[in-house]
Amino acid sequence: MSSPNKQSGSLHEKPEISTPEIINAAAISQIQKSRKKQPSSDELIAGILDGNRTALSRAITLIESTKPEHTKKANEVIKACLPLANKSIRIGITGVPGVGKSTFIEAFGTFLTQLGKKVAVLAVDPSSSLSHGSILGDKTRMEELVKDENAFIRPSASGDSLGGVARKTRESIILCEATGFDTIIIETVGVGQSETAVHSMVDFFLLLQISGAGDELQGIKRGIMEMADAIVVNKADGDNIKKSNLVKMEFNRALHLFPSKKSTWQPKVTTCSAITKEGISEIWNTISEYFQLTNDTGYFEKKRKEQNQFWIMETINEQLKLNFYNNPEIISQLEESKKAVQNNEISPFAAAQLLLEKYFKK
Amino acid sequence: MSSPNKQSGSLHEKPEISTPEIINAAAISQIQKSRKKQPSSDELIAGILDGNRTALSRAITLIESTKPEHTKKANEVIKACLPLANKSIRIGITGVPGVGKSTFIEAFGTFLTQLGKKVAVLAVDPSSSLSHGSILGDKTRMEELVKDENAFIRPSASGDSLGGVARKTRESIILCEATGFDTIIIETVGVGQSETAVHSMVDFFLLLQISGAGDELQGIKRGIMEMADAIVVNKADGDNIKKSNLVKMEFNRALHLFPSKKSTWQPKVTTCSAITKEGISEIWNTISEYFQLTNDTGYFEKKRKEQNQFWIMETINEQLKLNFYNNPEIISQLEESKKAVQNNEISPFAAAQLLLEKYFKK
Repeated sequence: MSSPNKQSGSLHEKPEISTPEIINAAAISQIQKSRKKQPSSDELIAGILDGNRTALSRAITLIESTKPEHTKKANEVIKACLPLANKSIRIGITGVPGVGKSTFIEAFGTFLTQLGKKVAVLAVDPSSSLSHGSILGDKTRMEELVKDENAFIRPSASGDSLGGVARKTRESIILCEATGFDTIIIETVGVGQSETAVHSMVDFFLLLQISGAGDELQGIKRGIMEMADAIVVNKADGDNIKKSNLVKMEFNRALHLFPSKKSTWQPKVTTCSAITKEGISEIWNTISEYFQLTNDTGYFEKKRKEQNQFWIMETINEQLKLNFYNNPEIISQLEESKKAVQNNEISPFAAAQLLLEKYFKK
Repeated sequence: MSSPNKQSGSLHEKPEISTPEIINAAAISQIQKSRKKQPSSDELIAGILDGNRTALSRAITLIESTKPEHTKKANEVIKACLPLANKSIRIGITGVPGVGKSTFIEAFGTFLTQLGKKVAVLAVDPSSSLSHGSILGDKTRMEELVKDENAFIRPSASGDSLGGVARKTRESIILCEATGFDTIIIETVGVGQSETAVHSMVDFFLLLQISGAGDELQGIKRGIMEMADAIVVNKADGDNIKKSNLVKMEFNRALHLFPSKKSTWQPKVTTCSAITKEGISEIWNTISEYFQLTNDTGYFEKKRKEQNQFWIMETINEQLKLNFYNNPEIISQLEESKKAVQNNEISPFAAAQLLLEKYFKK
């Protein structure tokens, strides 16, 4: 393609004319420069431990990559960061589109950095790679926070499976913590299965809602309300204040019907406005109360340990299934077995048993 | 042990004296008689299709057995029954201990047989084999129903895993339906994971509650309320009527906050007394309405198909996990891996990856 003497070192002046050859040489120089810039895992680790956001960002890119050499490098970085991780609080925030998540995180995150916190915002949204990032994709919706020196915002990793995205996010948390971020916010949309995944990687789970005729609530996935440690009725400003207070009362009544939590924490319902900033500090007080309680009872530590166990098992179970359902013989048999079950020729259990025998005999 | 000429045919009189030899011969005769009594799968199938409850009961015993020859026979019976199954309605009933499940099922079941229905009551309670059957174990709590010619009551299958009990119950449903039972009631306690399993094998899910200070509600497992197609406040009699109506209102309000169901069915809350029989017929009306709706929309058929798919997958996934976690090498490594994760030496994902590599290389 190019002769070896056309190296970056020999190109230090802006070319007066653009001949194809010079353009080519300039391009090569650029590639070689960026190749040189590709830092080693040691450099990345040093950068992260030094609190460097660029190093953090690059290491997360390695985590997100599917290339084996990147995965290897990422694992080295994660291994080195692990002893420095875990020193943070992790807050999950969910709510259906339209509830004002971005604006809320902008207001809440800025409030936290003003308190001296270092805030990292990550997202779990398996659909974003298909829908081209409904969530955090448009960083400009967090104008202030994105410019904040004490904040780090990263859109959702792309990945074909929730398991993949969840893994990437969870490993990114480790790196953020090693970089010195003490408050990790994980954002997700309240419409899929991602809440369960997020719930399993955070300490505190916050559900954003808005007031309305009840129709807005219909979008919440089953079970999410029961996961919430706090429900925040957002957009409680102007004409909306009265309605928001009514919704708050309704949620309070509903929460009363739920079984008590293992944490012994009684979920709180508050109102806030991400626009007027009314209620933001109260949310922080609630969260602080939660961390006080769970630190005192030892539940905080216990839950993190359980989450680690959960993710070992979850990863294993996911992989076992992938291996089975991607087996060529199983692929060719599964549809037939399903049909036989629908036609009442065989019970679901017997059908499963036959497939399993095939798989394990291979 | 015995000479070949000592066969059952040669022993037809009661022996006058008991010599060891004669006792031995008598015992052999007994064994051979009971062997003769052990019906073939064809006999069982014929009995079941004839509506014989003894044949049904014996076939279910085969399903519950762990002996390979019983499993084989059971599978033959199930296969023959499958084309005649599915012609029933399946109702799941749950509620914490103390809510009056047995008394309710006694009243409700008797009401149904009086309407001309044939009612089978099965139970899913994985703990019953340990606790010696908290549920349906004491059939005398259903005095009337147990004597009812049009009812069939079977306590929970024992089994070490929920998956095992669930499989046995689901296959028993097939046999009950083939015997001619048109209303299948599956009972479970509202405290474990069994509700999700039951929810996946019934058409209609009923949650029993009682009035009280709210403390009684604390025992309900998360998510169960969201599964309910109807909530019935039981023990609404005497002094309890007013309180029961208040609880009914509260549940109605809470249900309002839940997302709408795929069935488009709006869950109903009613009160009843299994003692005075007040409200029992209203429950049947509600259930009939549900079946009317889901038959009209095609949801009934759709849900049953989905449940079949679910049980194929569930069985496969369970077995894949069993195979992995029972692998001797995995057993010896897993605890060590978990410890390394807790000590922040390795991430949960990397730990899982190492275990998986070991497993698949074997």
